[in-house]
Amino acid sequence: MVKPLLLVYCALDPSLRMSKKYRVGILGATGTVGQRFAQLLEDHPQFEITAMAASDRSVGKPYSEACAWKLPGKIPTNVRDIVVQPIEPPLDCDVVFSSLPGSVARETEEAFARAGYPVISNSSVYRMDEDVPLLIPEINADHLGLIEKQRQNRGFAKGFIVTNPNCAVVSFAPPLAALHRKFGVESAIVTTLQAISGAGYPGVASLDITDNVFPYIAGEEPKVEIEAQKILGIFTENGIEKADFAVSAQCFRVNVVDGHMVSVRVNLKNTATLEEVVDAMKTFPTLGLHSSPATFIEVTDEPSRPQTRLDRDNGNGMTITVGRVFPDNIFDYRFISLSHNTVRGAAGCAVLNAELLIAKNLI
Amino acid sequence: MVKPLLLVYCALDPSLRMSKKYRVGILGATGTVGQRFAQLLEDHPQFEITAMAASDRSVGKPYSEACAWKLPGKIPTNVRDIVVQPIEPPLDCDVVFSSLPGSVARETEEAFARAGYPVISNSSVYRMDEDVPLLIPEINADHLGLIEKQRQNRGFAKGFIVTNPNCAVVSFAPPLAALHRKFGVESAIVTTLQAISGAGYPGVASLDITDNVFPYIAGEEPKVEIEAQKILGIFTENGIEKADFAVSAQCFRVNVVDGHMVSVRVNLKNTATLEEVVDAMKTFPTLGLHSSPATFIEVTDEPSRPQTRLDRDNGNGMTITVGRVFPDNIFDYRFISLSHNTVRGAAGCAVLNAELLIAKNLI
Amino acid sequence: MVKPLLLVYCALDPSLRMSKKYRVGILGATGTVGQRFAQLLEDHPQFEITAMAASDRSVGKPYSEACAWKLPGKIPTNVRDIVVQPIEPPLDCDVVFSSLPGSVARETEEAFARAGYPVISNSSVYRMDEDVPLLIPEINADHLGLIEKQRQNRGFAKGFIVTNPNCAVVSFAPPLAALHRKFGVESAIVTTLQAISGAGYPGVASLDITDNVFPYIAGEEPKVEIEAQKILGIFTENGIEKADFAVSAQCFRVNVVDGHMVSVRVNLKNTATLEEVVDAMKTFPTLGLHSSPATFIEVTDEPSRPQTRLDRDNGNGMTITVGRVFPDNIFDYRFISLSHNTVRGAAGCAVLNAELLIAKNLI
Amino acid sequence: MVKPLLLVYCALDPSLRMSKKYRVGILGATGTVGQRFAQLLEDHPQFEITAMAASDRSVGKPYSEACAWKLPGKIPTNVRDIVVQPIEPPLDCDVVFSSLPGSVARETEEAFARAGYPVISNSSVYRMDEDVPLLIPEINADHLGLIEKQRQNRGFAKGFIVTNPNCAVVSFAPPLAALHRKFGVESAIVTTLQAISGAGYPGVASLDITDNVFPYIAGEEPKVEIEAQKILGIFTENGIEKADFAVSAQCFRVNVVDGHMVSVRVNLKNTATLEEVVDAMKTFPTLGLHSSPATFIEVTDEPSRPQTRLDRDNGNGMTITVGRVFPDNIFDYRFISLSHNTVRGAAGCAVLNAELLIAKNLI
Repeated sequence: MVKPLLLVYCALDPSLRMSKKYRVGILGATGTVGQRFAQLLEDHPQFEITAMAASDRSVGKPYSEACAWKLPGKIPTNVRDIVVQPIEPPLDCDVVFSSLPGSVARETEEAFARAGYPVISNSSVYRMDEDVPLLIPEINADHLGLIEKQRQNRGFAKGFIVTNPNCAVVSFAPPLAALHRKFGVESAIVTTLQAISGAGYPGVASLDITDNVFPYIAGEEPKVEIEAQKILGIFTENGIEKADFAVSAQCFRVNVVDGHMVSVRVNLKNTATLEEVVDAMKTFPTLGLHSSPATFIEVTDEPSRPQTRLDRDNGNGMTITVGRVFPDNIFDYRFISLSHNTVRGAAGCAVLNAELLIAKNLI
Repeated sequence: MVKPLLLVYCALDPSLRMSKKYRVGILGATGTVGQRFAQLLEDHPQFEITAMAASDRSVGKPYSEACAWKLPGKIPTNVRDIVVQPIEPPLDCDVVFSSLPGSVARETEEAFARAGYPVISNSSVYRMDEDVPLLIPEINADHLGLIEKQRQNRGFAKGFIVTNPNCAVVSFAPPLAALHRKFGVESAIVTTLQAISGAGYPGVASLDITDNVFPYIAGEEPKVEIEAQKILGIFTENGIEKADFAVSAQCFRVNVVDGHMVSVRVNLKNTATLEEVVDAMKTFPTLGLHSSPATFIEVTDEPSRPQTRLDRDNGNGMTITVGRVFPDNIFDYRFISLSHNTVRGAAGCAVLNAELLIAKNLI
Repeated sequence: MVKPLLLVYCALDPSLRMSKKYRVGILGATGTVGQRFAQLLEDHPQFEITAMAASDRSVGKPYSEACAWKLPGKIPTNVRDIVVQPIEPPLDCDVVFSSLPGSVARETEEAFARAGYPVISNSSVYRMDEDVPLLIPEINADHLGLIEKQRQNRGFAKGFIVTNPNCAVVSFAPPLAALHRKFGVESAIVTTLQAISGAGYPGVASLDITDNVFPYIAGEEPKVEIEAQKILGIFTENGIEKADFAVSAQCFRVNVVDGHMVSVRVNLKNTATLEEVVDAMKTFPTLGLHSSPATFIEVTDEPSRPQTRLDRDNGNGMTITVGRVFPDNIFDYRFISLSHNTVRGAAGCAVLNAELLIAKNLI
Repeated sequence: MVKPLLLVYCALDPSLRMSKKYRVGILGATGTVGQRFAQLLEDHPQFEITAMAASDRSVGKPYSEACAWKLPGKIPTNVRDIVVQPIEPPLDCDVVFSSLPGSVARETEEAFARAGYPVISNSSVYRMDEDVPLLIPEINADHLGLIEKQRQNRGFAKGFIVTNPNCAVVSFAPPLAALHRKFGVESAIVTTLQAISGAGYPGVASLDITDNVFPYIAGEEPKVEIEAQKILGIFTENGIEKADFAVSAQCFRVNVVDGHMVSVRVNLKNTATLEEVVDAMKTFPTLGLHSSPATFIEVTDEPSRPQTRLDRDNGNGMTITVGRVFPDNIFDYRFISLSHNTVRGAAGCAVLNAELLIAKNLI
């Protein structure tokens, strides 16, 4: 009787049918995003962490010693004893997740791609390269078509690099994508209120943020102003044809642990009613991947929502929550948009990218 | 030998020459703004507090007992023993400063004006009335010309009402005024990051703001969108001719004690270089009143300034600090602007209004 | 094929074998603790919420409307539409969980007990009554023996009242119990650093706690000084023989959302080595109830742990985390102890009490 | 006519009579405490800063460039253009104030003392040396008698080192001294809630303290347990005879910018009533030095005071504020005590030490 039972049971959770788990190596394993990777992959049906790589002072130590764990809860037991290796190929894994700082990411990620590894990168260095997909799977999964060209350009035999966007961009690109598809976006003004975890650890000094608003995040405003156009661009034979709207960004750090809140005004190319605007967001489809939230973009009409602490964990941190959608005095519409910056905006987005790559038979 | 000494000494501080101090009554004396009035007037050369009025549960008690003092330091000794009276005329004073909640302000402030008192109001109810000056003394002192008309309209013999703006408006109206005078403002996008003290006491619940951004302040966005045009308007025989630009406001509460930070984008009617924009702000004149700061609008070019905690007290809380002035992708320019919401944005602005009224022989 | 499947499936989760779920009514359903009850019981195998009772202004509204939900995530779907009833018997349920404010708890909880309901109370009013169990199930489950006497004393036919301790007491009573059982506690000094959520909503004003330590919690120090002796007392025919140690408490509110941290010094009656002390805590048994954590008292030797934000959720908020256990200069030992104040210290403790009552066939 | 005027004018502010100002050099000028020195000495009648010394990366730059100013307000104009020098003698000054980190303080401060400079040190390295005064001027000014012995021991011709205590010790040593003088202290339990500024800049990572209590400050508990006995000790021919009470310290970092709050229990050698205890604190004399507060120890009987943010600036940050003085269940009395950690607990204490040295003709 066990077999039929199992069949039925598995029908409820198809992921369990997979006999094989892909082996994952984490580059930058001891950092804030590296820790999130460890946490998100703890019970993942498709992945298991088999290699941890970090900087010299961690090499040779078990992960539990090398890593000053900064997330709630404990270091997942399945990675506690993995001995940290240097950040260079080969690593005993099928795919690498990278959260390396920009300074070392360019060379190292290329080395891994060249050595045949799919590199799922959370770093900023390759995001705007013409042959590198900048992915939010729900929005532009077809940009994976760039991988072929990337391999040709760079002489990668089997490996490749895909990236996920800047964590602030992830907060507002989804509702913008919903509007862009239906009505065309002409321009967008975004003002961000970003969490301290976005800067990693030790990151933001407490004296810089307690009872304070810090108005400067190095390099952030330019990133926010250019990434959305690529993400919302169209894949063609010749690469990505970027969306042709302008973005203006002012970025602030505020005193919250996790969750980037963004204030948005948007001008549309075609007329849309408030109902159509809300509907476009609400109905933007989620995917059926393991880490996909039930709702990709949730729209609330409660006047005081979303709030950073109360809504950042919606959909296990993978849902984008939008609220206060109103006609604007100067632009067509305004709204606010929130996402969890270290889940949806970093590690969770990378994991979703990897799940997408499996679904597309690219790893 | 005393006399010549005194003459020379007084030359150093002309305010001391005044033999007479105006007697002040505070309406809403026990609230957050009422407490600021008490603090700002403690050693004021032109005013002394002679009457404290508050709601029923405080009446009959000495101020030190009626008031749960929430500002750093102690209740000023000169008001500790003043017995709180009901909020109704007559009060033993020459002028009243009001920080009444909207619900009671309309009737009460009118009653005081009708009874002959100049009413310096921090409440919102009269701000947009056509015959009531909405003052930032450095910007629109000439709007005091409305008082004559107000008296006619309302049958006030001697009293009158003048108001100061919403505390968030005070944060960005000054740089906007500087630009409007020189180049004309066409439109402005403002996104505010406001302090908890703006909501009074008990005001914002700690559960609503700790590790959180709260995206809704009741009634705030509409106020912010309409007050600037009146403040920057032109006084004519027929009243204020409002400035004809549009304002779009999104207002957030963030976890800082004092200080409203505002992100601004602005379109100008006439072309201006970045240098001209900065120069217009920097050179906007301060007044020579007792509470006037040495610099009305300070412009910094340090990338990470102004910061709320570090710059809110500039000019004893009366300076507006502007920074991050840059050309914008969509609008002509963007910048951030900060002011102390309970000093420049409330009690301090009201005191400055009163000093202006003395200088203009209106009290 | 469904039946055998179900059997096997249920073998994996024995709780599902129970055909019957106890129907629960929440008294004070819209408050902070009431919301935690709703959250904790959402997927509970033994309970389902069938009645919500709250104050007059909520009565007649669906819970989702009556309740300003302040916890992360959303109002559980299974309670959204329950129409709020007045706080009086009868309610359509088998047991009531009460988080009523002290002022109304005494009369109302008695009314429910008299009407036949087991009352699981989070309120403070009955805690020190001689015939009322003050429960931490792992420590003093045998105090349920008081129920018999309580029914006699008060003429309750079927109902009764059991209580859980003050949330600060729950943070340090468990390690104290571990030491008391093994070595005898002679005296304990506790200094608490308590979270804002302990005061409910709106509770602590943000101006009272932002960039601040608030040194006073009304009525807290006396409660903390007397409850532990009852909890650690011995059940006898004549009631609880209280433990005979003294407690000195100083209680502070600090700026954290959840989690009460307590600094403890303790004198023991019998000598114990540091290892024995740690061992006594670590080996204090957890129970096998549904909400029991895998570890009741976790002891860490990392110098900077427990930390409030990182460790409050240990064991789904039901574990007590102890650290920095050292010999003391004046007392025998010192340590710090942390628990989640609205889970283990309030709603979670009450749920555990109810699970214990089921296990003991008392409901 | 100028001369008599000046005479009379000076009578109002005797400090101005001094024709000479002592020239001050700051060691560690760019750090948090170094910045406080610059701020506190800006308008000081007895001192003017003439030399700024800091680490290599600052040397050769004007102070305004070398220093990332982290205090509210601006870099004082009188130090903006001082070019930072290496931290080694000679410096063009009469006395040096040191806020060097422990690692470099030992050698460097000795080098300055040997080169003839009085060294007023805020560092911890020399505090417990037998021939080095550990000063709180109001408590143990006579410990300056150690300087003679120090010069002999170390072969200093003219220079010497005096130190001020750990910032947490400064918060509770004054009330303890008041009790010790009158009744004798037998033992004291202290639990500290310390501000982030105590760790300097960047110091505490925001992720370690936002929505968190951090239970560990490296090296702090031992310092807190030994310094008070020396401060309250008696100066004799043979050195300081330490006070013979025991101190137990548990130290927490909490999320406040400035101000160390301490919870204290104390046992006295001789019986004292509550009134006597309070009176001993209240009447402990302040000194008449320039930076002396009007009240050294302020005792409040408001149940919710002192509060960190509201009371840290009492007496310009130089007053110790005590409250919640009650009989204790285990010890004789308990109370809470607050001081401003970077003013009274660091830079302000050092400045007061220097003023004392002038008054004693030691510089």
